[in-house]
Amino acid sequence: MLNQYQNLMDLFLRHLESYKINLIGKKPEELYEPEDYILSLGGKRLRPLLALIACDLFDKNPKLALHSALAVELFHNFSLIHDDILDAAPIRRNMPTVHKKWNTNIAILSGDVMLVKSFQSLENYGFKEFKKLSKIFNDTAIQVCEGQQMDMNFETAAHVSVEDYIHMITLKTAVLLGCSLKMGAVNAYTSEENLNNIYEFGKHLGIAFQLLDDKLDTFSENLEKFGKQIGGDILASKKTFLLIKAMELSDDRQKKDLIKYLGLKTIASDKKIECVLSIYNELNIKKLCEQEAHKHTNIALDNLNKVEASSLKKDQLKIFALELLKRQV
Amino acid sequence: MLNQYQNLMDLFLRHLESYKINLIGKKPEELYEPEDYILSLGGKRLRPLLALIACDLFDKNPKLALHSALAVELFHNFSLIHDDILDAAPIRRNMPTVHKKWNTNIAILSGDVMLVKSFQSLENYGFKEFKKLSKIFNDTAIQVCEGQQMDMNFETAAHVSVEDYIHMITLKTAVLLGCSLKMGAVNAYTSEENLNNIYEFGKHLGIAFQLLDDKLDTFSENLEKFGKQIGGDILASKKTFLLIKAMELSDDRQKKDLIKYLGLKTIASDKKIECVLSIYNELNIKKLCEQEAHKHTNIALDNLNKVEASSLKKDQLKIFALELLKRQV
Repeated sequence: MLNQYQNLMDLFLRHLESYKINLIGKKPEELYEPEDYILSLGGKRLRPLLALIACDLFDKNPKLALHSALAVELFHNFSLIHDDILDAAPIRRNMPTVHKKWNTNIAILSGDVMLVKSFQSLENYGFKEFKKLSKIFNDTAIQVCEGQQMDMNFETAAHVSVEDYIHMITLKTAVLLGCSLKMGAVNAYTSEENLNNIYEFGKHLGIAFQLLDDKLDTFSENLEKFGKQIGGDILASKKTFLLIKAMELSDDRQKKDLIKYLGLKTIASDKKIECVLSIYNELNIKKLCEQEAHKHTNIALDNLNKVEASSLKKDQLKIFALELLKRQV
Repeated sequence: MLNQYQNLMDLFLRHLESYKINLIGKKPEELYEPEDYILSLGGKRLRPLLALIACDLFDKNPKLALHSALAVELFHNFSLIHDDILDAAPIRRNMPTVHKKWNTNIAILSGDVMLVKSFQSLENYGFKEFKKLSKIFNDTAIQVCEGQQMDMNFETAAHVSVEDYIHMITLKTAVLLGCSLKMGAVNAYTSEENLNNIYEFGKHLGIAFQLLDDKLDTFSENLEKFGKQIGGDILASKKTFLLIKAMELSDDRQKKDLIKYLGLKTIASDKKIECVLSIYNELNIKKLCEQEAHKHTNIALDNLNKVEASSLKKDQLKIFALELLKRQV
């Protein structure tokens, strides 16, 4: 965790622990043990931290945003449980996924309960705040599901445009970051304009983050830091920004080669990566991905700049955002 | 539909149609077509009807409860989509289930969206009403998931007591009937005492309904009306009230026989049903099931009796409840 927000992170982690204590021994255990399990796997806790940061940004006690922070973290973990079923993923954070450790039925049902409990966390707020938060949260929850469905559709789609792709990652990943900040800002009772600006900041930060994550999968020079196999997206023929952009810009020969290599499941891994990578390099795809990420980073920072809050705190958040993105470079 | 509430049913069906129109062409289609599909399969629409009945019972315009009615119907249909995955059920209302018509991934995700949209329907109410309704609804949603998990656990449990079983059907089935009535009553701004009494009425009605449904599976004399294969629960060795009670009361010989026949997957259907049925008859299980249902019907009616509302309307609701149960006799 970045040092400047360590106190906020500690605050959330204490809240999470006190929530988790109530899960122990709760019946039926098959519903609540998976919840405790996935919440104990760790993770960056970025979304709850953003909720606390936003509340603090508007000079209110960040404790006010703790129930919002828990809501977004529960929602995020619900989505991980269900997404891991959809992706048939066996491993999450170096541990078996819920549907592997238990079974698919338990993963579906314990995910459902976590989704309801994420909404329930907001019941700790007064009438007006509860409704305002619930509306933001419900809208976001639906968008995240829509993004996940679009992502699944892309797997078999013949053509995906860059615009479609940015729309998909906006829904699947970025809106929940915007929502986390906005909910924390609602807890600080700030203006509608500030709410919108902080939301747009988070959303475009999320888009930039995902674009750089795509780049990193193929171009990381620091395997250990990244912790994933380099070229996994190429091997899986995943339609990331890189591939979509390459398909868009390629001439006939390059397009033919891309389609050929991506369609090959039996080719040696190294050969497939090498060939696709050489086309990416011919088309300067790495640079184009960075430029697209940079564009969204700038939109994010413009929105942060418009937020009415102390320059000191805004600068701190800007540094935090840039450090987050830097890890993706 | 029972004649006396036809106007309320029509009111709800019109509301449902106007909701469904908005689903047409909504993207991504894989999320919203299954929602339209399951909502178009029909069903009794009992839960939304109960919400409207409760609002009308306290002399308020039943239109006030339309958003609550839609919420409980959406929730019920979400639970059908996910339960059908859990039960690996291929058919629902004579049509393919969502995971069969599309696939499991789409069924998980479209169910998730319906769950969120059920909460969202309540956003049409003012602050205080929204929060009150959301709390009731969230609590109920969690209980329904707990009941579903308990039901799954019973499949492999060595021993299930009658008490456990009643607890399971209370959560899985009965609380949503109580919740539907209570939410409609909240929309009528009635007293806390009335809210509790109408809830308990619905809950115990639901328990009685499920017990008689268990009985009907084995003892129905009207195959056509029931529309299911008689003895399906015995063939599946399902731990219903009948089997649990029979295991509780059986002597050593009967218990040995029950365990033997229920463990046999290869025995001819007729033989299995005949043998288990003869033990049920020796132990008078049909009568005991009716008595248990009768007990809960009486508790339900006692609670209805305590509700402060016009005798005429309470009598109408009593007749409706008894007719519902009669179909299960």
